[in-house]
Amino acid sequence: MTVNLELPLTDLRGHDLASFPGGPWGWEGAVPVPPGTGVVTLGEGNTPAVWLAPRPGRPEVWLKNEAANPTMSHKDRYMAAAVTTARAQGADTVIAASSGNAGASAAAYAARAGLRCVVVTKGSLPAAIHAQIVAAGAVVAGFPDVVARNGTMQQAVEQLGWFPLTNYAEPGPGGHPYAIEGLKSIAYELARDFGDELHTVVIPTSRADVLSGVHRGFKELVNAGLISASPRLVAAEPSRAAAFSTALQKSDRSEQERTRVHYGPSAAFSVGSDVANWQGLQALWDTDGEAIPIDPDEFMDEYRACAAADGIFMEASSAVAVAATRHLTTSPGSGVVVALGTSCGLKDLDLALSDAPELPVLDNGLDDLVPLVDQASR
Amino acid sequence: MTVNLELPLTDLRGHDLASFPGGPWGWEGAVPVPPGTGVVTLGEGNTPAVWLAPRPGRPEVWLKNEAANPTMSHKDRYMAAAVTTARAQGADTVIAASSGNAGASAAAYAARAGLRCVVVTKGSLPAAIHAQIVAAGAVVAGFPDVVARNGTMQQAVEQLGWFPLTNYAEPGPGGHPYAIEGLKSIAYELARDFGDELHTVVIPTSRADVLSGVHRGFKELVNAGLISASPRLVAAEPSRAAAFSTALQKSDRSEQERTRVHYGPSAAFSVGSDVANWQGLQALWDTDGEAIPIDPDEFMDEYRACAAADGIFMEASSAVAVAATRHLTTSPGSGVVVALGTSCGLKDLDLALSDAPELPVLDNGLDDLVPLVDQASR
Repeated sequence: MTVNLELPLTDLRGHDLASFPGGPWGWEGAVPVPPGTGVVTLGEGNTPAVWLAPRPGRPEVWLKNEAANPTMSHKDRYMAAAVTTARAQGADTVIAASSGNAGASAAAYAARAGLRCVVVTKGSLPAAIHAQIVAAGAVVAGFPDVVARNGTMQQAVEQLGWFPLTNYAEPGPGGHPYAIEGLKSIAYELARDFGDELHTVVIPTSRADVLSGVHRGFKELVNAGLISASPRLVAAEPSRAAAFSTALQKSDRSEQERTRVHYGPSAAFSVGSDVANWQGLQALWDTDGEAIPIDPDEFMDEYRACAAADGIFMEASSAVAVAATRHLTTSPGSGVVVALGTSCGLKDLDLALSDAPELPVLDNGLDDLVPLVDQASR
Repeated sequence: MTVNLELPLTDLRGHDLASFPGGPWGWEGAVPVPPGTGVVTLGEGNTPAVWLAPRPGRPEVWLKNEAANPTMSHKDRYMAAAVTTARAQGADTVIAASSGNAGASAAAYAARAGLRCVVVTKGSLPAAIHAQIVAAGAVVAGFPDVVARNGTMQQAVEQLGWFPLTNYAEPGPGGHPYAIEGLKSIAYELARDFGDELHTVVIPTSRADVLSGVHRGFKELVNAGLISASPRLVAAEPSRAAAFSTALQKSDRSEQERTRVHYGPSAAFSVGSDVANWQGLQALWDTDGEAIPIDPDEFMDEYRACAAADGIFMEASSAVAVAATRHLTTSPGSGVVVALGTSCGLKDLDLALSDAPELPVLDNGLDDLVPLVDQASR
């Protein structure tokens, strides 16, 4: 069983949901910080929910577009809280294990806070993430494998006192508990925007930090009487690393907690997990939720369709959540289904340009252009 | 003299500025559209203003971060209005001349609206822009030079009825007048967030669409009594293509209007102009503004510093505006200075990674990592 620390829920009584300004810091005290702490912010949160037109086999869905964050992903809510906590605890150096959105976000928030930042990763990382990390002045280092990376991070934390922005245990129980508090604001914003119409929220899932934070946010809203019930929470996973989907097929909760699967990489590199940790399972159990595995062909079709038909170019991991809405086992009726879009397609240019033709250069003006357009329209 | 069409100002009387929800469509009627028109939106606007710490030689500045838009630039406000207008006029195909943010935005909004989109450009374009355009299903074509590109666009508009999302005249008087209306929302949001504290707004400038739209927005707010006066508007330009800076050195307005300079390319590829058009001059004249040319060394320093010290990784063109705040000739006193950040650094990865070392892969854990971090800290 992989279990994470969890903070007490925040008491939101007395707050006015309709005027929630958004983001982790929109309501003072929602993310617990020591008194007198200056919060670290880059203007994260308050992202738009965009309606996606129904398509054959897919219900009407709202995509909450977390790419509209300062480093273009939902991790900014997490890192705003994490780096605020690190600074409040007197850290001078923070360290994050990531080759994706978390690393880019850690570097930016550490820069903002004036802290030294080290991102440890595997042997390679996407060019966009690399650019974001080095632009922020962070040190990024690769390691031959995850064991070496995590072991080094553990030593840095235990021997040098560096503040861990991410977890470094294997299997991973979930992220830093204070950081997860920053993700509660996703629930507050959805409740503000959709109220009790909200029926289902589908979340791309790896180690279930988002699932856990969103779950905690909705619990706080229910406890304060600001909404009547939590929506169903759904974990969307790539089928090659679908620990939660595998777990929920087992009848017994203690067996579910011990689920391990083989982790197979996919283009949805931000999601998938080998382990169904407790923080994620709890969110699914408590909300009568489910977990849905999506094959690569299906989420790549959705990745292309969301960009070409809806105008929203997100990372492939986000398309896993949109695709999962086709497989919901509980009808939303007249309720609203939201898929969480975690980051933008610019984070993985190799994937985006893998099918793209070279830029044609036309010497004969309209005589060349019209056939090109006609061909593309076919 | 290069002069653009201009619509009547919108009457904003009766609106409540404090509750303005943001974006081009936040106030019905602010962007004029025919009755019954469905607007095209991806959730653009309502971007955060982020405080930048003072540094030697630079005042306290708020950066309005337009990278937090659906395609990661301010062009989304423009294209939301442009594509809405195109669809309302019955267009089936839209065309934009751009090798940057406008092309990426045009493609996404056309996809959203179900219109065919053609982006015409010079012989190359940044990989990120290319990826955004092809992901949205648009056709992109290069031309040997600007004359061939613009000539083809003119033929497409006049002979085929394609809707022009950008201007194709040389010298350029400014963008589509209806599209510029979408940019007024930047002024509304700034007025909502800062009210009469707002003293100066610095805008990276090429053909002055943003300057013009923001100017019109503030005029509407003043006319409706929602603010007492427009802030000073300042055009920030790369010194290699600083038409407005050159123009304002001349004593006579009719001479200013005829200013032409040599256009020299720079890393700030989104800004700079060979011509000081009327829509930009008018905004500077009316607000007692100024134009400030910035050398490449200076804006590249600011580009790096904003990412490494403030955590905001923007395109080099945005750094031109931040750098220009060092040279303001009128003290803001206790008033607020805002620089407009137009797009994010991910749009130009070649620039961002040009100084970056290869990712080091460490075989000896902490023994390798500590020297690497120490070296970077020096």
